[in-house]
Amino acid sequence: MIVKYQPLNPLKYPRFCGPATFFHLPHVRILENVDFIIAGVPFDSSSVFKVGSRFGPQAVRNSSLTFGDYNMEQKVKVFSNLSGVDYGDLPVVPGRTKTAFEKIEKELVPVFKSGIIPILVGGDHSITLPHLRSCFKWLGADISLLHFDSHTDTWDNYLEEKYNHATQFRRAVEEGLVDATSSIQVGLRGSSYSPEDFDEIKKLGYDYITTSEVKKAGIERTAEIIKTRIGNKKVFLSFDIDFVDPAYAPGTGYPECGGFTSFETLELIRKLKGLDFVGFDVVEVLPSSDVSSITSLLAATIMYEFLSLIALQRH
Amino acid sequence: MIVKYQPLNPLKYPRFCGPATFFHLPHVRILENVDFIIAGVPFDSSSVFKVGSRFGPQAVRNSSLTFGDYNMEQKVKVFSNLSGVDYGDLPVVPGRTKTAFEKIEKELVPVFKSGIIPILVGGDHSITLPHLRSCFKWLGADISLLHFDSHTDTWDNYLEEKYNHATQFRRAVEEGLVDATSSIQVGLRGSSYSPEDFDEIKKLGYDYITTSEVKKAGIERTAEIIKTRIGNKKVFLSFDIDFVDPAYAPGTGYPECGGFTSFETLELIRKLKGLDFVGFDVVEVLPSSDVSSITSLLAATIMYEFLSLIALQRH
Amino acid sequence: MIVKYQPLNPLKYPRFCGPATFFHLPHVRILENVDFIIAGVPFDSSSVFKVGSRFGPQAVRNSSLTFGDYNMEQKVKVFSNLSGVDYGDLPVVPGRTKTAFEKIEKELVPVFKSGIIPILVGGDHSITLPHLRSCFKWLGADISLLHFDSHTDTWDNYLEEKYNHATQFRRAVEEGLVDATSSIQVGLRGSSYSPEDFDEIKKLGYDYITTSEVKKAGIERTAEIIKTRIGNKKVFLSFDIDFVDPAYAPGTGYPECGGFTSFETLELIRKLKGLDFVGFDVVEVLPSSDVSSITSLLAATIMYEFLSLIALQRH
Amino acid sequence: MIVKYQPLNPLKYPRFCGPATFFHLPHVRILENVDFIIAGVPFDSSSVFKVGSRFGPQAVRNSSLTFGDYNMEQKVKVFSNLSGVDYGDLPVVPGRTKTAFEKIEKELVPVFKSGIIPILVGGDHSITLPHLRSCFKWLGADISLLHFDSHTDTWDNYLEEKYNHATQFRRAVEEGLVDATSSIQVGLRGSSYSPEDFDEIKKLGYDYITTSEVKKAGIERTAEIIKTRIGNKKVFLSFDIDFVDPAYAPGTGYPECGGFTSFETLELIRKLKGLDFVGFDVVEVLPSSDVSSITSLLAATIMYEFLSLIALQRH
Amino acid sequence: MIVKYQPLNPLKYPRFCGPATFFHLPHVRILENVDFIIAGVPFDSSSVFKVGSRFGPQAVRNSSLTFGDYNMEQKVKVFSNLSGVDYGDLPVVPGRTKTAFEKIEKELVPVFKSGIIPILVGGDHSITLPHLRSCFKWLGADISLLHFDSHTDTWDNYLEEKYNHATQFRRAVEEGLVDATSSIQVGLRGSSYSPEDFDEIKKLGYDYITTSEVKKAGIERTAEIIKTRIGNKKVFLSFDIDFVDPAYAPGTGYPECGGFTSFETLELIRKLKGLDFVGFDVVEVLPSSDVSSITSLLAATIMYEFLSLIALQRH
Amino acid sequence: MIVKYQPLNPLKYPRFCGPATFFHLPHVRILENVDFIIAGVPFDSSSVFKVGSRFGPQAVRNSSLTFGDYNMEQKVKVFSNLSGVDYGDLPVVPGRTKTAFEKIEKELVPVFKSGIIPILVGGDHSITLPHLRSCFKWLGADISLLHFDSHTDTWDNYLEEKYNHATQFRRAVEEGLVDATSSIQVGLRGSSYSPEDFDEIKKLGYDYITTSEVKKAGIERTAEIIKTRIGNKKVFLSFDIDFVDPAYAPGTGYPECGGFTSFETLELIRKLKGLDFVGFDVVEVLPSSDVSSITSLLAATIMYEFLSLIALQRH
Repeated sequence: MIVKYQPLNPLKYPRFCGPATFFHLPHVRILENVDFIIAGVPFDSSSVFKVGSRFGPQAVRNSSLTFGDYNMEQKVKVFSNLSGVDYGDLPVVPGRTKTAFEKIEKELVPVFKSGIIPILVGGDHSITLPHLRSCFKWLGADISLLHFDSHTDTWDNYLEEKYNHATQFRRAVEEGLVDATSSIQVGLRGSSYSPEDFDEIKKLGYDYITTSEVKKAGIERTAEIIKTRIGNKKVFLSFDIDFVDPAYAPGTGYPECGGFTSFETLELIRKLKGLDFVGFDVVEVLPSSDVSSITSLLAATIMYEFLSLIALQRH
Repeated sequence: MIVKYQPLNPLKYPRFCGPATFFHLPHVRILENVDFIIAGVPFDSSSVFKVGSRFGPQAVRNSSLTFGDYNMEQKVKVFSNLSGVDYGDLPVVPGRTKTAFEKIEKELVPVFKSGIIPILVGGDHSITLPHLRSCFKWLGADISLLHFDSHTDTWDNYLEEKYNHATQFRRAVEEGLVDATSSIQVGLRGSSYSPEDFDEIKKLGYDYITTSEVKKAGIERTAEIIKTRIGNKKVFLSFDIDFVDPAYAPGTGYPECGGFTSFETLELIRKLKGLDFVGFDVVEVLPSSDVSSITSLLAATIMYEFLSLIALQRH
Repeated sequence: MIVKYQPLNPLKYPRFCGPATFFHLPHVRILENVDFIIAGVPFDSSSVFKVGSRFGPQAVRNSSLTFGDYNMEQKVKVFSNLSGVDYGDLPVVPGRTKTAFEKIEKELVPVFKSGIIPILVGGDHSITLPHLRSCFKWLGADISLLHFDSHTDTWDNYLEEKYNHATQFRRAVEEGLVDATSSIQVGLRGSSYSPEDFDEIKKLGYDYITTSEVKKAGIERTAEIIKTRIGNKKVFLSFDIDFVDPAYAPGTGYPECGGFTSFETLELIRKLKGLDFVGFDVVEVLPSSDVSSITSLLAATIMYEFLSLIALQRH
Repeated sequence: MIVKYQPLNPLKYPRFCGPATFFHLPHVRILENVDFIIAGVPFDSSSVFKVGSRFGPQAVRNSSLTFGDYNMEQKVKVFSNLSGVDYGDLPVVPGRTKTAFEKIEKELVPVFKSGIIPILVGGDHSITLPHLRSCFKWLGADISLLHFDSHTDTWDNYLEEKYNHATQFRRAVEEGLVDATSSIQVGLRGSSYSPEDFDEIKKLGYDYITTSEVKKAGIERTAEIIKTRIGNKKVFLSFDIDFVDPAYAPGTGYPECGGFTSFETLELIRKLKGLDFVGFDVVEVLPSSDVSSITSLLAATIMYEFLSLIALQRH
Repeated sequence: MIVKYQPLNPLKYPRFCGPATFFHLPHVRILENVDFIIAGVPFDSSSVFKVGSRFGPQAVRNSSLTFGDYNMEQKVKVFSNLSGVDYGDLPVVPGRTKTAFEKIEKELVPVFKSGIIPILVGGDHSITLPHLRSCFKWLGADISLLHFDSHTDTWDNYLEEKYNHATQFRRAVEEGLVDATSSIQVGLRGSSYSPEDFDEIKKLGYDYITTSEVKKAGIERTAEIIKTRIGNKKVFLSFDIDFVDPAYAPGTGYPECGGFTSFETLELIRKLKGLDFVGFDVVEVLPSSDVSSITSLLAATIMYEFLSLIALQRH
Repeated sequence: MIVKYQPLNPLKYPRFCGPATFFHLPHVRILENVDFIIAGVPFDSSSVFKVGSRFGPQAVRNSSLTFGDYNMEQKVKVFSNLSGVDYGDLPVVPGRTKTAFEKIEKELVPVFKSGIIPILVGGDHSITLPHLRSCFKWLGADISLLHFDSHTDTWDNYLEEKYNHATQFRRAVEEGLVDATSSIQVGLRGSSYSPEDFDEIKKLGYDYITTSEVKKAGIERTAEIIKTRIGNKKVFLSFDIDFVDPAYAPGTGYPECGGFTSFETLELIRKLKGLDFVGFDVVEVLPSSDVSSITSLLAATIMYEFLSLIALQRH
């Protein structure tokens, strides 16, 4: 493959030169000679508390401008080993969940078909559902879901609504989009509505590990638990930024105190090296609460670690 | 009538004592011995740009705590001449416009039936539609709409969606809720999509006066134009906070530069004395952009002038 | 006992519906059939550096709206096992310490008499003194003080003033309100005026453990040290939010770098299970420095853990 | 007189070089060869709503660094015609009004005795009382008070407290510190507690002109009204920053919408040329609400106009 | 001419879809079939006070997303009558003024040669110098400079530096880039260093009109004065955002109180219809002080009025 | 030596009294009877991403007002064992690196000659170069550099510029200012441009230890590694605030996620007790991104720990 799409040369253009795209990648809607695309999904109408993550993709673009080619921890050149583009934002419609989901799903089908790894930037967490639907269409149901989040997002409904950012991982099982038995939720914490919420996760087939359990086990051991659960299945990684503590990620719609540091978070992602990833998303970045843009910077850093995993995987 | 519901005594409790209710009025859901209710409508799912006005009602509550009984400009005691309550927030559902509209409409019917003037605090401007629907049920279609806004909100649809905060005043005519021929839009400015937008307003029966025209005519003359248009009809006043310039109201979802000062705004509302008001709303207060809370303070001040008009009207 | 006062049903009303009360509890001044009350104490006139914690209670109300019934760490249903109310704010007077203290003390006496646990939300830390005075009136002096703070607050005076938020725990001993010999201060750090400050704590009878010592001992061992010190005495827990590091709690008046994470903090409180609590407060939340409201969210989370301890204790 | 104390040379030192003093003047406590002093008065314990103006002096220092020597409107060189110093902050005590007032009064006596014009920067508006007490000691009661404010500050008490920022101009008359019959309040607006509030002002001997009246009369005519009222008496100008609209001065503790623009404000002060000023203050700058520092910049600009009036008066 | 480059269809894509370009125009570096280009110039190293306008272009992009085709005041369709692109940011080097100027000048030469009108977005005001140099290369010196600003920017040097944002309009005359005798500065105000500063402007050949003079003359008359001065010369309009009052434009590096409202500003620009424009810039937008993005929104609105003038001029 | 220069008495003046100087030390340019000076260096023109650290010194002054005499961890009285002053800001010129460096170097020569330890507060990290040049003039090249930073700052050039905040530690070796073989960089992390960046550090003679390595080794062991490397050489400690995680230090120009907590940072500095320090700086504090001033507070706390090391060293 001829590597073609790479960031603007940082030694020629200052990092603040615009228009801002993800990692200064070219903004083109092209699927040839591409390993990954990054696309924004500015849909937030299913948010049940603070809302406004429709501006998340632009904020992450603005915060993704300073990354270099070489990941010193993973010892891999990221961009020179890959080809990728800023695919723009998928065309959603505010206030119309069904329509938005259809558009998102449809846009992603050719991406999966081309063997390209799509990295989506939310938007609220409901967007993972059409992402998985599209993934399923090409790759089938044998996908493990690796879900970093402080919340389960496996309710049946909320305020009588079946489709929002508290229900998508129940829908995913019901629709047969993932293999729950090799899937795992990592980082659950905070208050819940009832102890049954946790039984429900297990009933759906998922496993989970709480924040307290991760803290007790340590990052190294947690990575092993995850890898054991998933084995050599194809993996879809969905990352809700509220996995991280509000001190590190104040810009999110439903923050939960008592979470992870950014070091723990990045360390855990790095240790997932070796898994067979087919898709990624990072969601729930809310710029209007992200007072010094540290949340969008962390989201961009997490995406940089995703890219590093891809670079390690593909080359 | 026995006047009963009044603000917490400011000479006994510091103004910052909480929980915050509108003007420190008692928070009770009661319709007896009441002249007005103030209710929040935390619905914002029809917003097409910045979103988050669901937190508008709470912000306005927090900024409404310092008002005294006497309006020195209108020379009227406001609260001692009236009885009113903080009716709480109407129970909406995020992301579900139709359901939310039904709930809003239904909740307000008994209010109108009781001859009480409801003052609603948005939320986005789409909420005026169910407000008008409810008003219509009791008072019929012979209502003049007095609409302060920088936008027309009379599109047929936006992104193929019929119900959002760009279309409600077309729907109101189509549904026969208002008498457009005695109604007027005040403060239009900014860019539009085509010159036909303005022909459309006229075709719907509305009249309008732009920001430039108001500035040229002056506040006094503008008030006369409005009063002449409306005559002695019953009036429903809908106030979009983006009528005011962003310097005075930065906290809104679709701001338009080149608008009115707060003095011009308050002066214009004061000069509406004598009209026969049946309903009010103030909408589109977006706390996440309202960096020093001056927008919510202005919204509260506008509501205080509404209350003063009611006090003058009823006593 | 008939459990009566519980949060607004979250499955019926969106969490952002207002007016905001603590945890959506009913705002009523009632002492029957109640296990706990939560009251704001918006007094901040004794603050010696940044001031404005009078707006702390409202901020904590706004940040307490998303908690569910079930504490997954403590494995207890919190609200369904208890009955509690938002008791409103105690009526203080800005700038008049003595008067404010008298009002606070007086308001709380019937609460303690009713066997209800009061949870106060400051305001500055001086308010713990009238809280303890009231506690003493009913329960006597055999109370252990468990004090989380980065400061000792045991000076004799500051700027020749005997009553402010740097002296209240010396006054408490002088006035015989607590049993210092079973009391302990946890989390001391930062600079002090002289080494004698620490001798003084011991002379007053208190024990203390510094931030460095806690970090070295670990959370588990620290909890044991605390429990050993207190034994089976009745305990009053006073929590200054500056115990936590400014990254997690920027909204406070006298922040000290080098503090605890939110996880360490919550973990430590959870491990206090089994102690016999009679009162709680959380103080020094300063909204004007709390740029993304993470401090008030953490304060609400700490209060949720207090409530969980009560739920475990009472049922 | 030998002119000695002038700002740091702006052509040699960038304007952002620190430590910040008022207008880069030397920070020395000296009264010889000085025309004016500028002193901070970081006292805010009498604030009845938002509090924190103790940080006002430092904020104004930080915003006063860019002013040049020449006032193009008044056609006068300001600093080269005068000698003045940053006198530092007067040593107040938080929470202790009486003590603070005594310290302020005492510190200013030698200033007035030396024929120096003191410019004080609040702090809350209560500090004008000790300022006037000190002024009275040297100059006697034949002083006109020129009071720019949206509030009357002539209540008898608030929450049973006689001394706070709502009462000082009643106290001033009661204590015989000013000649009310040649004094005037300019800019009153907003809500009040009762119509009697305005009768009371007149009973005290003051005259007043409301914001609406100023807007109607125009700035030119208003200046004439003021000058006619005062005649050739000595004048003390007290400027509450909430005279200006919150759009121009968001950083204040009790803002009132519908106020003046910065242009109107500066124009009005400039037109006071010719009056015989003996003292100035600017108060109620609240940095914690002054999100982009425009309030403190405006306060500094107002002080620059004060200095220009002094330069015109003295030379 | 075939109109080709227009904004993304707003009826198909929500306005918040990204990556953000100026007015959703296509980001292409192309000069064929183009009437205008918009380019960012993220250079701020010559700023002498607050710095950071390098992020101005991106902020203006983010705030330019909501404009429609039709300017209701000028009664012209803007985008459908023109073709234009987001040309990206010109490649500057931080800290190296000379290099940056050379790059800017060089990049613009082909633009002027193609008869295209360049609209530059600063960056600090020094960038107008290379802009004029490039303009001069093609169009010669017979260009009138129309300069909106609160400052003269005609110093000889500042801190011994000849090239920064306080000197560029002296350099422009010295280098023979403009016809000063038909040029005019509009909006001067604030303090200056000496009265000679104003004589100097005249000596250079410029005329000027101060803020006070504009306010007295009115917007209509001011437009006439400008048009008379310029006659039918080619005009270059340079707009420093600090022309506007800080309440409307807090996001700038050297704000001056007592300025214009946004309405006055837009009205004045609209009345320039009929002049023969060859270049535009808007400079000194400082996002780090632009707390609710109202400054960048105003800058975008000013650019929209520039585009309207071009649309009127070309069609 | 007669100890003379100490902070303002905190028991007499409230901590918020101004003008703000570092730790309330007297602002005098004096070198007699002084152990240390603290000077601001408001130079930021070499910043390659976010810029504005010229306001860093003033922000750190404002945040340094609450420190007491006694360091409880180091068990040393800091100020009563030392004499020091706020030396003001060194007179730099924005946009002119060479001139600024000459001025900085020159100003510091007499300081080093007097055996005084200078503590500089940036400004951007390039200022360490003239600091080292000045140090070298008196103390020669036998200085170990102890460099805390997430970046190497050892590039050869950036955007063809040799002198900026990415190159200074290469220049230092090239100019022979430090003994690289006993120097060490601590805390490297984030992305880099190529693996060769790290070989280059070694080639220059420096050693380094990454963030991950520190986290793995622990603070205690890291301190040992550092001390072993340095031995009993004279040490210059240069502290880039981006060593710390953005959650703890959001106010910086080039933040890197996944960094240290404030506790780890302070602990590490404390454990450097025993080294022979000759100079310190703390750089890259960017107030415009430091939304609740926690970064400048942390910088002040780090400086307090520097002072404690000096106090331990000198007495």
